[in-house]
Amino acid sequence: MLNLISYKQKIDEELKKFFDSKLDGKDGIEKEVLEQLKDFTIRGGKRMRPLFMIAGYLLNADITEEIIKASILLELMQSYMLIHDDIIDESDLRRGFPTLHKVFKFNKKTNEGLAIIAADLANAYCHEILLRANFPSENIRNALVEMEKAYEATAIGEINDMTLPFTGKVSLDSVTKVHRMKTAEYTINGPMKIGASLSGYKNMDLIDEYAIPLGIAFQIQDDILGVFGDEQILGKPVKSDVQEGKITHLIIFSRQNTSKIEQMFINSVLGKRDVTDEEFNQFKELIRSSGALDKAEELKKSYYNQAISSIPRLTEDPELREELKFLADKMVSRNT
Amino acid sequence: MLNLISYKQKIDEELKKFFDSKLDGKDGIEKEVLEQLKDFTIRGGKRMRPLFMIAGYLLNADITEEIIKASILLELMQSYMLIHDDIIDESDLRRGFPTLHKVFKFNKKTNEGLAIIAADLANAYCHEILLRANFPSENIRNALVEMEKAYEATAIGEINDMTLPFTGKVSLDSVTKVHRMKTAEYTINGPMKIGASLSGYKNMDLIDEYAIPLGIAFQIQDDILGVFGDEQILGKPVKSDVQEGKITHLIIFSRQNTSKIEQMFINSVLGKRDVTDEEFNQFKELIRSSGALDKAEELKKSYYNQAISSIPRLTEDPELREELKFLADKMVSRNT
Repeated sequence: MLNLISYKQKIDEELKKFFDSKLDGKDGIEKEVLEQLKDFTIRGGKRMRPLFMIAGYLLNADITEEIIKASILLELMQSYMLIHDDIIDESDLRRGFPTLHKVFKFNKKTNEGLAIIAADLANAYCHEILLRANFPSENIRNALVEMEKAYEATAIGEINDMTLPFTGKVSLDSVTKVHRMKTAEYTINGPMKIGASLSGYKNMDLIDEYAIPLGIAFQIQDDILGVFGDEQILGKPVKSDVQEGKITHLIIFSRQNTSKIEQMFINSVLGKRDVTDEEFNQFKELIRSSGALDKAEELKKSYYNQAISSIPRLTEDPELREELKFLADKMVSRNT
Repeated sequence: MLNLISYKQKIDEELKKFFDSKLDGKDGIEKEVLEQLKDFTIRGGKRMRPLFMIAGYLLNADITEEIIKASILLELMQSYMLIHDDIIDESDLRRGFPTLHKVFKFNKKTNEGLAIIAADLANAYCHEILLRANFPSENIRNALVEMEKAYEATAIGEINDMTLPFTGKVSLDSVTKVHRMKTAEYTINGPMKIGASLSGYKNMDLIDEYAIPLGIAFQIQDDILGVFGDEQILGKPVKSDVQEGKITHLIIFSRQNTSKIEQMFINSVLGKRDVTDEEFNQFKELIRSSGALDKAEELKKSYYNQAISSIPRLTEDPELREELKFLADKMVSRNT
């Protein structure tokens, strides 16, 4: 067993080292922003994206110090997107701590501005890490092409996600499309392809077959946790998805088996900033009793199975096969 | 004479072609966002950054179709930064048209969210254009290193700029540092170095000597126009710099030759959202009568001269020398 998860500590150390090199010689507001970006990036992450990048690299090469060092770029990419997301969603908490635009002590406008720019800095660093890594320039170029594709897909997914609540009738397909674009690409497919490119691996279609269904399964799990999860473990209020009016598979399924009045209630709670506990519990009960939770679990399972069944085509290496199965299990069985 | 400015039309055409290829097959909200990003990017630009990139390339190679095509990436980089800037500054107008977060018709939160993400998309495209251009991978890698350096410097400059008004006593040096980081890097130095890297040019220090003082001169001119410019020509309200409380060389100089009460008046106007015409005219009069305008013009001239005097070291080609002088003149003598 490759036991990639054992590299988590090494990844954390490399992240710390990277930020410390950036902090060297800085003072004043530059130092403060970098410190905050460092804390935001380092705390609470499960490092799944770096591990998927390393797994992608292993499709065509053996593990090296260099690929572990480079894999931290995914955590910078993640910070870039989460920070912008938190501003867009007006979220106050992330990973049990204030979101980045909430940590500064100027006025609201300046605090948000600093967060937007700190995220942009994370994006520049994410590129810098890859550009300075010790791989052939041709492979780095290919890896960056995959990175930009992941960024583009995620942005398109975000655009659709943000405007879903305004589009009237939302279908299962449009929710799945958002999951594919917004989550699967940058969480699994992009990271694996970046790693695969660095080892000169070319067969990107085979990665799609594993990464896309797994990414969708992961997002369904995320949405389930967003309603039924444990607030203490998640580090953010469970009500927040509902308050943001997020349209998920759970919501779509709930419409198939509820009365008109129940649907009206669900719609009235979605996007309401001050949902009471009573309303939220009733909402959860309807999602459960309508069978929507079971259907979402089933759909998740079916995407998960699709991903698992693609593994034998992706690699002949029994250890890597086992590892890809292990990572997939981690993604869908998590409670945080 | 190379007459680089004559390529402006070709650059516009390439920009249009790029967006049309992205728009191909899109519909709904994705199409709308891309159309808006296209309009925002194409209208009103003087294309100076692409021209500086081409000039950088010419330090070590002859002009080709490919470098002109690639140079449009600077306009995407510019859109990325302007859009985030406009959100941070809460600006309503840019280039005589609504800023990007003002063109969408959802709610404020969604409109701003779409603008943040459209900017992030522009950033991915800026990288994509370079990655797909027909140059050796090694040169592209070096060009991207320069791009990330420019992004990093600009972000650090922005962070300082945003927080200057909170730092009490602001010095001439700290304003100049912001100009160097925020403007010189991404307007002139970064573009030239990206172009130079693509042609395999290595002597980056010589580019600094031209680009950094020129960038500072350009920003001083920009700040002068931000107070004394013609609103019709600028396409944005001239009061906006004052309303944003921007600390410029003009402000610093005005403090050297005004009475306590005059300084208090200047401070009271800076950052005031509802500056009256009478207040604004009095403010302009003080900047002028204190000699601050003349001093800023002199400082601009001295940075400009510094840039010009570096040209002979940068290249031996008389045509390119003339061109670099021409571009420098354009940057500091503009009225828009």
